[in-house]
Amino acid sequence: MRILITGGAGFLGARLARAILARDTLTDARGRTRPVREIVLLDVVAPPDLGDSRVRAIVGDLADAAVIDRALTADTDSVFHLAAVVSGQAEAEFDIGMRVNLDATRHLLERCRRMSEPPKFVFTSSIAVFGGTLPDPVPDDAALTPQSSYGTQKAIGELLVHDLSRKGMIDGRSLRLPTITVRPGRPNKAASSFASGIIREPLAGERAPCPVSPQTRMWVSSPRTAIDNLVVGHEAPATAFAATRSISVPGISVSVGDMAAALRRVAGDAVADRIDWRPDPAIDRLVSTWPAAFTAALGRSLGMRADRDFDAIVAAHIEDSRPAGP
Amino acid sequence: MRILITGGAGFLGARLARAILARDTLTDARGRTRPVREIVLLDVVAPPDLGDSRVRAIVGDLADAAVIDRALTADTDSVFHLAAVVSGQAEAEFDIGMRVNLDATRHLLERCRRMSEPPKFVFTSSIAVFGGTLPDPVPDDAALTPQSSYGTQKAIGELLVHDLSRKGMIDGRSLRLPTITVRPGRPNKAASSFASGIIREPLAGERAPCPVSPQTRMWVSSPRTAIDNLVVGHEAPATAFAATRSISVPGISVSVGDMAAALRRVAGDAVADRIDWRPDPAIDRLVSTWPAAFTAALGRSLGMRADRDFDAIVAAHIEDSRPAGP
Repeated sequence: MRILITGGAGFLGARLARAILARDTLTDARGRTRPVREIVLLDVVAPPDLGDSRVRAIVGDLADAAVIDRALTADTDSVFHLAAVVSGQAEAEFDIGMRVNLDATRHLLERCRRMSEPPKFVFTSSIAVFGGTLPDPVPDDAALTPQSSYGTQKAIGELLVHDLSRKGMIDGRSLRLPTITVRPGRPNKAASSFASGIIREPLAGERAPCPVSPQTRMWVSSPRTAIDNLVVGHEAPATAFAATRSISVPGISVSVGDMAAALRRVAGDAVADRIDWRPDPAIDRLVSTWPAAFTAALGRSLGMRADRDFDAIVAAHIEDSRPAGP
Repeated sequence: MRILITGGAGFLGARLARAILARDTLTDARGRTRPVREIVLLDVVAPPDLGDSRVRAIVGDLADAAVIDRALTADTDSVFHLAAVVSGQAEAEFDIGMRVNLDATRHLLERCRRMSEPPKFVFTSSIAVFGGTLPDPVPDDAALTPQSSYGTQKAIGELLVHDLSRKGMIDGRSLRLPTITVRPGRPNKAASSFASGIIREPLAGERAPCPVSPQTRMWVSSPRTAIDNLVVGHEAPATAFAATRSISVPGISVSVGDMAAALRRVAGDAVADRIDWRPDPAIDRLVSTWPAAFTAALGRSLGMRADRDFDAIVAAHIEDSRPAGP
């Protein structure tokens, strides 16, 4: 298997690469389980060194066709398209969002469909494709009603993935990830960035602003579980899909107040008291348009799973961020 | 008012131009009713001479940015984006469909949003954005579930029109037209082309193939009514819209067998017997994915209307195609 991961220098991309290297095999579009020969990590910045000779890094702009040509060879079996301009930035900087989230996705799909063997194509979509009045919980086949530019661009990606799959040009699957928490590193321009910040920063001894009310509910997943579910989504046979190629990935529905309470239970009052409840209407507006509960029926039927509860997510983050011991 | 009509040499484009010239006024995005100063007809072929000095023709490819720049001036008030690669061709020739129906629409919207005054933007969408299992009749806010490349490209256009309107970059409205019958001229590559052919050709003394079964139901509109409804969609204030900018335009739900029976009632047995029932699985598959009944509630509330029945549609076609008398 030769695998391309776009956004390969990102936190999820690098973790996904590690998980695939550890598995050592993946299933190709013809249903054959084959050893992992190469993973190409494509990103605008250099990816971390994963210490494995099967990994090749390409630094370049995904919106540049020449870069895609270098990254996608004639024998690429699978593409994980993770690269994206995040929600808050796509809303504020419309051009950049359109260029990366729409145009680059379109070019990548265009290049994939010209390969002699249609590759598997895992597109990381988002719950932001939904908004407004919806059934609660939201079924996999609910209407795409994005209320943000990010959600619009992801919804368009889903439509393209479905149409090219229908025509046999790719073997696509669009996986709508929950909000991933706890992400390591620093805050980013995602409207959901605070969902990691209010756990990560207090645990690191820093204060963290929370721009939404404690009552705001979110659909969340730990990084570990999200990575597992991305692999399940890749491994699923094309026959598992029906009317569309889209799956709402399992998560847990939790209020932001409950997230803070879990932090208090796991790490104590001194840590949890480092959250500053400071409403930001722009972020609150975006986040409140995202539904907070999904049936996730198709994903569960394929073997995807959710975290046990938010306490477990906090505990896993503490474990993952502990320096490697002697 | 300065108005751009893409696909302006087409049958609907030219009729729309005539209807707007006859009205003499339209309402701009600020709600001001103003006289029609200029209509630009943009198409890949020369439009018919409408005999009105307010009409300017531009022949060029909509996918060419320089052509869009010529067609869309700083003081354009309204755009009617009718140009499209039709359903059968978009399915068979994927590249051409993507280039015109997706890329050109994207470029046109891109250019519109850079104007100092956001223009009104009427996008002709299609009932082909729907497919699969749906409520019957289909409400305006049903899930977009296209089962064809044409429907996918139109659904993407609707998402873009909504997002740019939400951001105040354009004042957009996507009007999902029923199958238009009876179109004049010759058969085209639309999967629905037969819906005009089985009326038009027999009336002209020619035999006409019908590729779907008499039981197939369709959602149809006469050209006259469709043009009237396009103008109503343009005139509606932005405040008439809620969660999306999309409207399923009123039509009548009729079986193909009933269409033939109407022809028999209006024009006699000799004419109706010129239909050859000759199933074509490729066309039948596309047409059968389109729903055949819509609530059309939003359109009706705005003042759009449907034809009385199919007999009236046949009679109107006979009247419209009669040579001008002395």
